[in-house]
Amino acid sequence: MLIVQKYGGTSVGNVERIEAVAKRVIESKQEGHDLVVVVSAMSGETNKLLEYAAHFSTTPNHREVDMLLSSGERVTSALLAIALEAEGYAAVSMSGRRAGIVTDAVHTKARIEYIDTTLMKKELKEGKIVVVAGFQGVTENGEVSTLGRGGSDLSAVAIAGALEADLCEIYTDVDGVYTTDPRIEPKAKKLDKISYDEMLELASLGAKVLQSRSVEMAKKLNVNLVTRSSFNKHEGTLITKEDKIMEQPLVSGIALDKNQARVTLRGVTDKPGIAAEIFKKLADCNVNVDMIIQNVGHDGTTNLGFTVPQNELEMTKAAMSELRASDVMEYDSDIVKVSVVGVGMKSHSGVACKAFDTMAKEGINIEMISTSEIKISMVIQAKYGELAVRALHSAYQLDK
Amino acid sequence: MLIVQKYGGTSVGNVERIEAVAKRVIESKQEGHDLVVVVSAMSGETNKLLEYAAHFSTTPNHREVDMLLSSGERVTSALLAIALEAEGYAAVSMSGRRAGIVTDAVHTKARIEYIDTTLMKKELKEGKIVVVAGFQGVTENGEVSTLGRGGSDLSAVAIAGALEADLCEIYTDVDGVYTTDPRIEPKAKKLDKISYDEMLELASLGAKVLQSRSVEMAKKLNVNLVTRSSFNKHEGTLITKEDKIMEQPLVSGIALDKNQARVTLRGVTDKPGIAAEIFKKLADCNVNVDMIIQNVGHDGTTNLGFTVPQNELEMTKAAMSELRASDVMEYDSDIVKVSVVGVGMKSHSGVACKAFDTMAKEGINIEMISTSEIKISMVIQAKYGELAVRALHSAYQLDK
Repeated sequence: MLIVQKYGGTSVGNVERIEAVAKRVIESKQEGHDLVVVVSAMSGETNKLLEYAAHFSTTPNHREVDMLLSSGERVTSALLAIALEAEGYAAVSMSGRRAGIVTDAVHTKARIEYIDTTLMKKELKEGKIVVVAGFQGVTENGEVSTLGRGGSDLSAVAIAGALEADLCEIYTDVDGVYTTDPRIEPKAKKLDKISYDEMLELASLGAKVLQSRSVEMAKKLNVNLVTRSSFNKHEGTLITKEDKIMEQPLVSGIALDKNQARVTLRGVTDKPGIAAEIFKKLADCNVNVDMIIQNVGHDGTTNLGFTVPQNELEMTKAAMSELRASDVMEYDSDIVKVSVVGVGMKSHSGVACKAFDTMAKEGINIEMISTSEIKISMVIQAKYGELAVRALHSAYQLDK
Repeated sequence: MLIVQKYGGTSVGNVERIEAVAKRVIESKQEGHDLVVVVSAMSGETNKLLEYAAHFSTTPNHREVDMLLSSGERVTSALLAIALEAEGYAAVSMSGRRAGIVTDAVHTKARIEYIDTTLMKKELKEGKIVVVAGFQGVTENGEVSTLGRGGSDLSAVAIAGALEADLCEIYTDVDGVYTTDPRIEPKAKKLDKISYDEMLELASLGAKVLQSRSVEMAKKLNVNLVTRSSFNKHEGTLITKEDKIMEQPLVSGIALDKNQARVTLRGVTDKPGIAAEIFKKLADCNVNVDMIIQNVGHDGTTNLGFTVPQNELEMTKAAMSELRASDVMEYDSDIVKVSVVGVGMKSHSGVACKAFDTMAKEGINIEMISTSEIKISMVIQAKYGELAVRALHSAYQLDK
């Protein structure tokens, strides 16, 4: 098999850990696989460099920031190649440029446009383990670019897609994707498999294993993604196409998002254009609106509700104030969003009903509801968040 | 004027010092000059990276070492560009690759083959301060290479040559080139000007301001080189063509080299081929032989003497042992080499005589003598080294 493995900053945090990663890579090599290994910067390095830059400017030139930050992954890739060769395995490190990763020119959050795999293929053919500096690429005019948060995962997925690898393994410090956060519900179970869409809902809902961008790309490029721990040998979670998952569970997981605030506008005149005006204003201010609920009203007025990230609440208030709408708005940041996710619910009725019933049994008032084909999200008071997660986890028998 | 400035590791050792360098660069810019600034890695960085590599292997792949080490200068160049922009000056950092520095493929000690100045010229034309990561280039097939010890000086000189810059300023932690080491002779004077050839003799004789490679390249490319301190505003020393130095002093400086060992082979059969055999063997073992003296003998035998660096003495002994010559060799590492350097001595007699006379007056026995057009070197017992330097310094009135 051709396998792309990605090791994050914690997994390569010091020379001893890099040595452990080398051993792990070698085990895969000994099993007969061809390997491309994507590495992040040693943990702490990127922040150190950003602190240096912050000494000079709070708004450093993004092009220079990319030049600065890209050095961290280069160091790790060279060190891992040296570690592999020290154990007698031919290896070659590559910067994003050498790996052929071409991006657009939006520095610090570039998007991968294409990958020229010529050099990687040549080295793989010669039997070498290819070690690629993650998180980075090069623009069409030859400048170093970086891919933003979660960039090394993206590098790995994109490379796996371009090389048509059999598997893309993302090594982190957790065992895989769980039915819910084990710190909230100790009975949470690791999932063996999950579909891209479910993972997308879970990722965007606060499961910190993988960023949405990587899962989206894996889905688009049809990459079989595995997330597993670099600190033990447990099997991880395979994220793949829905039709590859035989036994479709009704519900895969429960997510809790504590970073939301609720905004409500009561008694809006129920005529066209009001909602458009509000959300256009918010979009102009780069506020990421999540749930939007509008109820049918009576007396020609309606209630409009939506949620925004908590750290964008002040921005939201300012924007509403410019629209002279702030006086009739209600803001509540003391809420959380609980979500039930599962592709199985598409074809099953009663899933939503069970969620509401569970909330009722626990005496939890649901303030907002939003549903999609594979997700039910509920906004509730913050203090009930963990209780709701545990109750739902049990109601859908995820601990079984 | 177009000026290339180079700041070493100590000068950019932390963010405060980088800020000071930025101020200095801006002063030159305000004087109306176009500027290319070459920077080293922050002091300590390169050693830290080498230690990381040493954890895995005592003989890491040189290609990977270059990938590893080249990151240090990239960081500094980005930080300096950010610092300059924070002060309102347009700046752009460049890796060796972006600066167009193409080298041969001898990793960790590559030689610059040519510089494609297109991009640097374009940015300079737009009024930007170009900040180049020193010490590095790129091979013809696109791999990162580094230039070895003193590599950032080389980058600066080569860029100055390629751009036909008016001046190449090398900033270090010393004020310039002195008539001798001020720690040995406090009356040592800073030289305003010195010729390439004199500097070459001084550099190879242990004056630590500049490496021979950089001076050789400056001479070849006709680059006006200035060495000065980044910690004060003193004028430095201009290293230039001989004919640009109007008042030619007889003697420019006295150098002391403590890193030599003397090897003597007594009673060699005085026939062709003996010396050739010995020095071929030493060359094969990469021993850098410095002085070579052979006296005309009598009785058909002769005495052959030479010096080698102290840390290559064991290698020398081993090589001689293979030639079965070790039993008749004498080794003495308790010696130093004192040299009197000056282009003026070419056209003046009596310079050598004064040197020998001075040694005699101090009761110092001269064990070996070697002269060139602009240099007189004497091997003496180590304990007399400093005394000899002071006596010669005074005899040639260098303190006046």
